[in-house]
Formats: sequence, C-alpha cells, structure tokens
Amino acid sequence: MVKNTQVIFKKVPTSYLPVAGEHITTQDTEFDLDTQLSNGQFIIKQLVLSVDSYMRGRMRDPSVKSYNSAFEIGKPLLCGTMSSVIKSNNPQFKVGDLVYSSGGKFEEYSLVDDDTADDYKIRNEPKETGLPPSYYLGLLGMPGLTAYVGLIKFGQPKKDETLYVSAAASCVGQLAGQLGKTFGMNVIGSAGSDEKVEFLKEFGFDNAFNYKTNDINTKLEEQAPKGIDVYYDNVGGKTLEAAINHLNHYSRIVGCGMISQYADHPETPANLIELIKRRVQFTGFVVTDHSDMEDEFRKDVTKWFLEGKLNYKESLADGIEKTPQALIDVLQGKNLGKQVVKVTDL
Amino acid sequence: MVKNTQVIFKKVPTSYLPVAGEHITTQDTEFDLDTQLSNGQFIIKQLVLSVDSYMRGRMRDPSVKSYNSAFEIGKPLLCGTMSSVIKSNNPQFKVGDLVYSSGGKFEEYSLVDDDTADDYKIRNEPKETGLPPSYYLGLLGMPGLTAYVGLIKFGQPKKDETLYVSAAASCVGQLAGQLGKTFGMNVIGSAGSDEKVEFLKEFGFDNAFNYKTNDINTKLEEQAPKGIDVYYDNVGGKTLEAAINHLNHYSRIVGCGMISQYADHPETPANLIELIKRRVQFTGFVVTDHSDMEDEFRKDVTKWFLEGKLNYKESLADGIEKTPQALIDVLQGKNLGKQVVKVTDL
Repeated sequence: MVKNTQVIFKKVPTSYLPVAGEHITTQDTEFDLDTQLSNGQFIIKQLVLSVDSYMRGRMRDPSVKSYNSAFEIGKPLLCGTMSSVIKSNNPQFKVGDLVYSSGGKFEEYSLVDDDTADDYKIRNEPKETGLPPSYYLGLLGMPGLTAYVGLIKFGQPKKDETLYVSAAASCVGQLAGQLGKTFGMNVIGSAGSDEKVEFLKEFGFDNAFNYKTNDINTKLEEQAPKGIDVYYDNVGGKTLEAAINHLNHYSRIVGCGMISQYADHPETPANLIELIKRRVQFTGFVVTDHSDMEDEFRKDVTKWFLEGKLNYKESLADGIEKTPQALIDVLQGKNLGKQVVKVTDL
Repeated sequence: MVKNTQVIFKKVPTSYLPVAGEHITTQDTEFDLDTQLSNGQFIIKQLVLSVDSYMRGRMRDPSVKSYNSAFEIGKPLLCGTMSSVIKSNNPQFKVGDLVYSSGGKFEEYSLVDDDTADDYKIRNEPKETGLPPSYYLGLLGMPGLTAYVGLIKFGQPKKDETLYVSAAASCVGQLAGQLGKTFGMNVIGSAGSDEKVEFLKEFGFDNAFNYKTNDINTKLEEQAPKGIDVYYDNVGGKTLEAAINHLNHYSRIVGCGMISQYADHPETPANLIELIKRRVQFTGFVVTDHSDMEDEFRKDVTKWFLEGKLNYKESLADGIEKTPQALIDVLQGKNLGKQVVKVTDL
C-alpha cells in the first residue's frame, strides 16, 4: 500500500470563490500497487495536473445542466493530467508510457479500467523533446491547440495586420499573441495587472495595457491607430464592444471564450450592428472539434519553441496538496501563465 | 419646357416618422428638354423609384457622421431608380437605353453630367425579359442580390437544413426564404402582421409567425423542432437572441441588417456566449462589396422566376406625388413586398 493523496470536491460553493478545506480539500487514501490487474487495466502515477478556471463551472449542483458534467461530491476533481504508466495489463499502454487525459483524476495514483482507457492518449513526446511534461498541458496541449486553431484557422492572420488579444496573459492568450508575431502581425494584448502587462511586453507583444486601470476604448485608439484586423476574444461583454469599435472592414473575431459572461451581471455589446457595417466575420469554436490539426500544431509549436521563436511561462505549484489554493489563485487571476501542479517528477 | 415634379427633402424630422409636406414634399419645377447637351451629358426620364427605409437615416443633420451621406435640404431625395435615356451626347448612353442608379434623383427628368455618368449602369434586360423595370429595383436589383449573396455565400445552404428569416416579408426576406426553398431547406419566416404571415405561406415558406403577437422563442421551438442551421438576420436585438437560442452546432448567421437597432432604446442579445458553445459563424456583409456575383445572380434569379420557382410581390404606388406617403408607409412597415413608385410607363 502507498499513500494516495486526492483532491476532493467536498461541497458546492455558494459564491464564486471556493474556500480551501470547505469546498475543495485534499485527503490521504491508500492505493494497492500490488493489486491484480484484470484485462485492459493499468495503473498510472500522475506527474502534473492542469488547473483551469472552467473547473469552477463543474463545481455545481448536478441538477444544473451545462455543456459539461458537474463534479461528483466526495470524488476527485477532474481536469487535464500528464501521467506515467507504472503497471499495465493493457497491450496499448506499456510501462513507462506517458499519457495525457483531458479529464484525469486529481490524485497521485489511478487505476484505469479497460472501458475508460480511451480517455488516455499516449504522449511520449517529453521523452523525445526533453521538454517538461507540464508543457504538454499548456504550450503543447489543449490551450496551445486552442490558440493555434483559433488564430490560424479562424483569424486568418496576415503580415502587417493588427491583432488584439484579450486575457492575453492567459495560456491561450500569450500563445495567440506570440503566434500573431510569427505571422508578422502588430500585436496588442490586454490583461488585469501591470505585472501581466510587463510580462506581455517581455514576450514580444508590441503593445499591452491593463484593462482594470485604463479605458479599453482609449487604449485601443492609442495602441491600434490603424484599427484591428483580428480580435482574439477570450472575454466578451464590454471588451468585445470596445474591440468592435476599432475593427477594420473585413476583420475577423475569433470567438474563443467569454469569461466576462460568468459574472453575476454580465454586460453585452450594444454595437453588434457594426459587425454588418464593417463586414466582420465572428467564428465561435471549441477546440475539441479540431483534433485533425493536432499533429501539425504540435510539430510547428515544438519547432518554434525550440528555435526560440516562442516563449512560454507557467505558474507551477509544487505538490498535490497545493491544488486547492492553485485553483483559487486561478479564479482570482493571480497566476501568471498556465497554472499547473507538479505531483511528482518524471 | 416640361413640368418636372421633384420629391424634396425639406426639413430634418425630429421624430422617427417624417411628415409629408413638412419634412418631405413634392414641388413642380420646369425642365428644358431642348437644352444644348455638352460633351458626355444625357437626359433621363425616371420610370420607377425604389423607396427604402434606409432613406430615413439620410434625412439627418449633415454634421451627424454615418456610413452614408446626409440628404441635402432643398434637394431631391436619392435612392434606386430605373430610367430611360431620352436624349444623349454621351457615346456610352444611347437614346432608349434603360439605366439603373443606386442614388438616382427623385424627379421626373434629370440632366446627367459627364462626371456623374458612372453612377448610371445600363440595364436593358427589361426589354429582353419583358419583366417590368420595377423588378430591377427589387427581385432583380440590389435587394435580390442581397438575398442571393447573403444566403448562398454566407449562409452556405444545404438540403434539409432549417433556415429562419426575420423581417421575412421584406423584399430581401421573401427572396432569402424562397431561395432557401430552391436549396431544399425547411424555411421559417417571421413578420409583423398576420397578413404578412399569410403572404409568406402563400410564397412557400414552410412556417411563419407574427412576432408582434407571439413569443419568438416559443414559436421557434414549435416551428424549428430540429433547430436552426441558417439564420438570415435582418433584425438583430432580441430576435437575434431568440434565434441564437435555437441554433444548431456549426450553424451560420447571415448578418444582413439589424433594423431593431434603430429604435430609441435598442435591445441587444445577452446570449452571445452560445455562439462559441454552438460553434456558430456570424458574417456581416454589405451587398455593394459583391458586384462580382451580380451577373450570376441576375441570370439565376431571372431563370428561376420565369420558371415559376420564385414568386415576387411588390407594393406599387402610382405617380411620383405619392412618394412621401410611400416612404412613410415603409417606415411604418405597411408595405407588403418591395415598395416602388411608378413615375411613368416604359
């Protein structure tokens, strides 16, 4: 038997921010590594966990319907994980294989049954590239693919055009902006603190501003004097409205997310008629529809990163017991770069 | 000298509806048909005038900027006209040619100078097809092209899909819906009176409802049980919001117009996040960008109309002096089908 610390959904929070210990908690259980595996079963050891704001939406009463399922009370939280196969009775998964799941369990060890084995994808690239497994939850994982598909497929970037990215210090945002630079665009980002603004400039954004201490319209006027050709929208609401005010004719809005709409009294843009007058295309997308672009994405972005054309920053909490606070930090926007929790080294 | 009745913009209205005689009026002037034409000049006699709601936006103080220019006080209104060349000193325009202008003068006779000759396009098709010149202001004119480009290029219609058209009894709306039928779509339309709803059903819409006496969400639930694949939006606001509630994944919104946004207190959709969740593409367009599709459009629609695959209804006021009231009718939604004013027969 080994200790198996789990991160448990204990109680539905009554306000936006959960409280560590009350709504999310860690508990130590035991795991039997010597258990007899039936056909198709295998055991994984978690290496790193992805901590994402969208998890808050799953911390709800299961009677509330949404596009994703509610977490189960008393069970581990679920989100992106990179893990190592340590024992296997499944010919598809060999001991030493690294595996990714978009809904892995937040615990040190998991027993995977044959009927859920499909939820795990072999991702042995870290062993080839030498990049940390955590990067395959961010830069080279779902957020990276989201930035890549959104900007390239729906943003249709062109040299010398202007790209505006909101929530630009997020994992998706920082990559979308940097990808824009690889296409020769003029890139502007907005974020919620001066520290994040500095970080964006270090990462090669041509301009950046703090949307909490500045008027978005004024800043876009200043920083996008030739207008916006591509708006990569992670925020929606009044940020979308301000972006629309500065769109050029035939511009594109990449509809990636609208975090503003999860507020208690969400605001909504009042200038949609401009989408017609300015001949704008808005495309909403969900990254899971675009796995056909995954190989090309991972090849391109790995290459660009190793060549130094892209930077990457993550916020790494060390130890599974740090997970509840890491999630609370994310919900407060305190993380700078992709938030991950290291459970153990590769 | 002949009498030349003009429709004059007399005064900027203070409320939405202009008053005939006060803000728009007719006046009789004289026109010298025997005038010596300088190089490039020609004289036209108006046959039929297009009366469109967007003219209200041009009846403003010129200091108010907009995408179109303000009408000049004391000068004739301008909008689509079909005319006949009756005298010419311009080799491009021969006596007997029919000409279309998107901004022709609302008067019986006009002298066209060489430097504005380009505003007139030869449109002799009525002489070949036998169809009335007025059809070239509606079915076979700009509104027809708007319906055609919007549905075909941006709606990407597919057999057995569901199309919803708002302001469906308008010239653009009736054509968009009927074009949907030619693609084998299930077509739903909404309009502002029971008479218009009946008319839509006669024109082959599978379902139609009166948005003034019904809840739009309830009606879409009933009439689009499989969801909406293409929403041809002429209205925006809460109609757009209701349509979004019923959109299928990968559906398209054709952003053609948002008449609701000209109200004193326009409403705006509060569910734009659904555009992401449902992977929706919204494309705003302005028909004047798509003259490359004009030949194909006119060929197709003439053929389909002559084959009986399309119906067409216009509201024809007889006599140029009826123009002020015709415009007021349009602004009140009283017209059924494209509003035109016949000035004289071909």
